[in-house]
Amino acid sequence: MTATATSSAARIEIELGERSYPILIGAGLIDQASTWEGLPRASTALIVTNEVVGPLYAERVKRALQPHYARVLTVVLPDGESHKTWETLNRIFDVLLGEACDRKTVLFALGGGVIGDMTGFAAACYMRGVPFVQVPTTLLSQVDSSVGGKTAVNHPMGKNMIGAFYQPVRVVCDLDTLQTLPARELSAGLAEVIKYGPIHDMAFLDWIEAQLPALMARDVTALSWAVQRSCEIKAEVVGQDERESGLRAILNFGHTFGHAIEAGLGFGVWLHGEAVGCGMLMAARLSQRLGHVDQAFVDRLATLVGRAGLPLVGPALGASSYLEHMRVDKKAQNGDIRFVLIQQPGQAVVQGAPDALVAEVIEQSCRA
Amino acid sequence: MTATATSSAARIEIELGERSYPILIGAGLIDQASTWEGLPRASTALIVTNEVVGPLYAERVKRALQPHYARVLTVVLPDGESHKTWETLNRIFDVLLGEACDRKTVLFALGGGVIGDMTGFAAACYMRGVPFVQVPTTLLSQVDSSVGGKTAVNHPMGKNMIGAFYQPVRVVCDLDTLQTLPARELSAGLAEVIKYGPIHDMAFLDWIEAQLPALMARDVTALSWAVQRSCEIKAEVVGQDERESGLRAILNFGHTFGHAIEAGLGFGVWLHGEAVGCGMLMAARLSQRLGHVDQAFVDRLATLVGRAGLPLVGPALGASSYLEHMRVDKKAQNGDIRFVLIQQPGQAVVQGAPDALVAEVIEQSCRA
Repeated sequence: MTATATSSAARIEIELGERSYPILIGAGLIDQASTWEGLPRASTALIVTNEVVGPLYAERVKRALQPHYARVLTVVLPDGESHKTWETLNRIFDVLLGEACDRKTVLFALGGGVIGDMTGFAAACYMRGVPFVQVPTTLLSQVDSSVGGKTAVNHPMGKNMIGAFYQPVRVVCDLDTLQTLPARELSAGLAEVIKYGPIHDMAFLDWIEAQLPALMARDVTALSWAVQRSCEIKAEVVGQDERESGLRAILNFGHTFGHAIEAGLGFGVWLHGEAVGCGMLMAARLSQRLGHVDQAFVDRLATLVGRAGLPLVGPALGASSYLEHMRVDKKAQNGDIRFVLIQQPGQAVVQGAPDALVAEVIEQSCRA
Repeated sequence: MTATATSSAARIEIELGERSYPILIGAGLIDQASTWEGLPRASTALIVTNEVVGPLYAERVKRALQPHYARVLTVVLPDGESHKTWETLNRIFDVLLGEACDRKTVLFALGGGVIGDMTGFAAACYMRGVPFVQVPTTLLSQVDSSVGGKTAVNHPMGKNMIGAFYQPVRVVCDLDTLQTLPARELSAGLAEVIKYGPIHDMAFLDWIEAQLPALMARDVTALSWAVQRSCEIKAEVVGQDERESGLRAILNFGHTFGHAIEAGLGFGVWLHGEAVGCGMLMAARLSQRLGHVDQAFVDRLATLVGRAGLPLVGPALGASSYLEHMRVDKKAQNGDIRFVLIQQPGQAVVQGAPDALVAEVIEQSCRA
């Protein structure tokens, strides 16, 4: 890791007027003083992390923040999607109030998507809003969930149902943290990287196909471009549609089916990225059935998802279970499910589909 | 009430760019079709009310909404500040998700400040934001809490600590609902009406002094002007500082001491307006001790608060209890309490004060 610590960092701006912020991408960023300069001033910083990531990085982040804040507190939450609940969120509020943290306090989300979503939502709600910084330590959170200001907790009846659009003041993607990521989590992150190809940039899909061995081997140069290009695409989409009134929904390619898998199995059984990978294949098959793309496109996507170490066959929950969960998806309108489909390779469209056709695709996708 | 149903309605605009909205003030508004025209279209409306207000008005609001929404649902929550919690809030989410409400669903807050704050926060969080309409049925919520977009629930360690700035799309103040208001609640509302005098408009304070008998007798003409002028002042302040980075804090005159009374006694023992009335006297005394106003001003305010049927003596919780609760006030910075004081009659200022002086004022204000 020492060798990469001197590589130069990329900087991508999310342009949202007075809510604009930079994404910093590079190896060794946590230990570089410049990473933490120019953040909002406050007497207290609170690092929110989990029991897996905390022991690896919390002390280093704390040391880096101490020159800037008189108090640097840490709260360690349990790990995993099943803990992305109001009860866990409340542990952040208990610390903030128990330590009399004022409304200038800056929160730092150190971990994956679950920590980022919960810390962001806590920041959105504490005293009606305090600043927060994303320090994503998983590939999935670096390429997707830490960027764009979607924060939330799950409700027993649906994923991310309770939340806010609330932008961080900075995102710090230290690529070194990906070296300690379990293989299963790396694969889950690749699902969200792959996603950007079919919806927006087929040249990026070509690149991913070619570089997949390097990405799986955690080559820093390959990871750096994967994170940078993913964030660029996300920045472009979010900059045009912060609150998902239209275009932004295309970032949910694979997520409608994926959420049904996660909710149907119980949150945390499959990783979010695993469900998204499998959900992309379902959405691609539905696109093919509707005549948008050909079978070769579906096969190409399935091959890549499989090479990335992701499950290709959905859990056999029954089509009616999938449909029921998808009807409470946030994109649904008036009980009609809205799918993100591929209109043609590199271009997405949001539209409905007949239940019977969707059920066929689900049954086809869940056969072992 | 029939006689007043034909009186003309006032309309005040809250100017916040794309988040602007009107406040409608008049007698008989609930039953007037024009009140409900032009709201966001959706298949479902959800009326959120409580067990006291619901039986009085929910059916009438439901009938008024039925021409506009295919489904009009109602959820009835328990009444009172002690229920302004996450647990109660979750009952709104349970209905929304249980009934598969989509993200176009419009929420209607029918009740006092507790219902308004919780419904607004639920609207802010459900699927990261759905539209909501305030239908305040208490004087306090008509003149203060329904306007300006502050939403929240309480945390055991502090009032309104978990919430959001989230603006309604319309506020409907039907003055007829004040005829069914218990006398104690009417007095509590008058505290927030009186507040606008010392901080912004001494001519309005003169008017309140002259019209207090009419206001206490629920004369519709007097109530109409009290609500209208209060909303005008609030609109002016909120329009300049939506997220309370400065000026808006003056609306919290009496609230720092007041919150300490509420939290110290346990939420719901004193009504919010009662605590604010008593808190204004404490803040006025502190202003006098700091040389901003004279004793005659303090006496004048105390006389009016007393005539409005509000308690003049604070609960004897001990100065240290007050100070402890005030240190977690949202205006506090770095552990230093910030008070809204009267710089001169009609003009407020936010500043700190020595603990010893504050303690003296508290002890003086809590002697029977």
